[in-house]
Amino acid sequence: MTTVLKLGGSVITEKDSPETLDGPALAALADAIAESHSGARRAANRSDEVAGADLAELVVVHGGGSFGHHHAATHGVSTIDGTHDVGAITDIHGAMTTLNRFVLSRLHERDVPAVPVHPLSAAARDTNATLSMPTDQVATMLAEGFVPVLHGDGVVHAGEGVTVLSGDELVAHLARELDADRVGVCSTVPGVLDGDDEVIPGIDSFDEVADLLGASDATDVSGGMAGKVRELLDLGAPAHVFGPDALAEFLDGGEPGTRIG
Amino acid sequence: MTTVLKLGGSVITEKDSPETLDGPALAALADAIAESHSGARRAANRSDEVAGADLAELVVVHGGGSFGHHHAATHGVSTIDGTHDVGAITDIHGAMTTLNRFVLSRLHERDVPAVPVHPLSAAARDTNATLSMPTDQVATMLAEGFVPVLHGDGVVHAGEGVTVLSGDELVAHLARELDADRVGVCSTVPGVLDGDDEVIPGIDSFDEVADLLGASDATDVSGGMAGKVRELLDLGAPAHVFGPDALAEFLDGGEPGTRIG
Repeated sequence: MTTVLKLGGSVITEKDSPETLDGPALAALADAIAESHSGARRAANRSDEVAGADLAELVVVHGGGSFGHHHAATHGVSTIDGTHDVGAITDIHGAMTTLNRFVLSRLHERDVPAVPVHPLSAAARDTNATLSMPTDQVATMLAEGFVPVLHGDGVVHAGEGVTVLSGDELVAHLARELDADRVGVCSTVPGVLDGDDEVIPGIDSFDEVADLLGASDATDVSGGMAGKVRELLDLGAPAHVFGPDALAEFLDGGEPGTRIG
Repeated sequence: MTTVLKLGGSVITEKDSPETLDGPALAALADAIAESHSGARRAANRSDEVAGADLAELVVVHGGGSFGHHHAATHGVSTIDGTHDVGAITDIHGAMTTLNRFVLSRLHERDVPAVPVHPLSAAARDTNATLSMPTDQVATMLAEGFVPVLHGDGVVHAGEGVTVLSGDELVAHLARELDADRVGVCSTVPGVLDGDDEVIPGIDSFDEVADLLGASDATDVSGGMAGKVRELLDLGAPAHVFGPDALAEFLDGGEPGTRIG
């Protein structure tokens, strides 16, 4: 059972204040992950045995929040507009690896065997912006009982230098490549909301919600809710969008928030 | 013209003192790289053009020296003996990324468009210890005019947790995957030495030097000179082993030190 879990950048950082962590929010999410992952933790500590294939496998992806987006916006870098300026690349990538170290340390403090995977080191886009990112390393980490932790990042892009690889695109890529059983998107909102700000329990096609969600996502550096829904519908694995309070329920096998696909 | 350049860990660090940089040595090497790479630098700054394929392309790999080896030895981790302890993995990988940031910053100060690639994020070994590390990201970085900088690191290893991936193994892997034209190994010694401590000008087969080099490499966490020579003979590209003073000559197309293969 493989689960890909996205921790929204807006959930774990103070989005309006550059490079500021939301420490209590991250700690609460790390508590929920540690609680649910204790089985994998025990297996990983038995270094004489390979973790069994029936074990719950968890991949974590976090967004950029006030770490990555701030620098990407300052340097005019998006998923389609790139840069060859290594100062800009270092600002964006450096901020994201700093945030990644915060996430890893909160998980390590709770004995979750989290291991970093930085997409800038592993991924590329061709001239058509098609992403290639082989996932042997992630699959082997999972089989060994580790919890790989990836993040939105810069990605080298043929003809563009380095562009943005959003956490959402990464979640979709990993879910497909790893043939994930479940996808969870932990967001600031408790689910996809209708016109009355009520959580929509399930979405089976984009047409059902297109009017509601608008089309403003095209200019968002990491995709708005419409883009998320479209990506998640296309995965072939059930996805759930839920708020921070519902992470434990999701990891327990529950179906909080909005079910997509 | 693609060149893979190894900067020995013993050259850029104080090997006997844990996590201590040899700042003047690294600065001198960065000077030589910056001098030779000015053509690529100009191209990389013209963000409206893709760097031409005829441009000199340089991949840098640095060893661990007193950063990686210290922690690997403390935790009993080698290229064959792994660990599932994330504290150990974080010590080894964290020290190597710290050293990598030093190397990057010295290159950035000299306007070399260096970009980090951390092998832990990109590579895996199967149960036979066979390395897989796709290099699309490295090739795309080169085509865009960047200088990818890799390093000895931990690598996830099926059945072992995380083992050591040495800089030398990485150099051999990259030279093959990128079909490199030249390989340079910048070492503390001015070349492969004979019994009288004289530099051997050329080595065409291992038999020529087997007695001289002994067989002590089997237990060295990152391979001794015998292991290096054996790997370099097997590359299909000419390799040179030389001392720090000869880096500029090598990057200029010269043939300092010992030619191997």
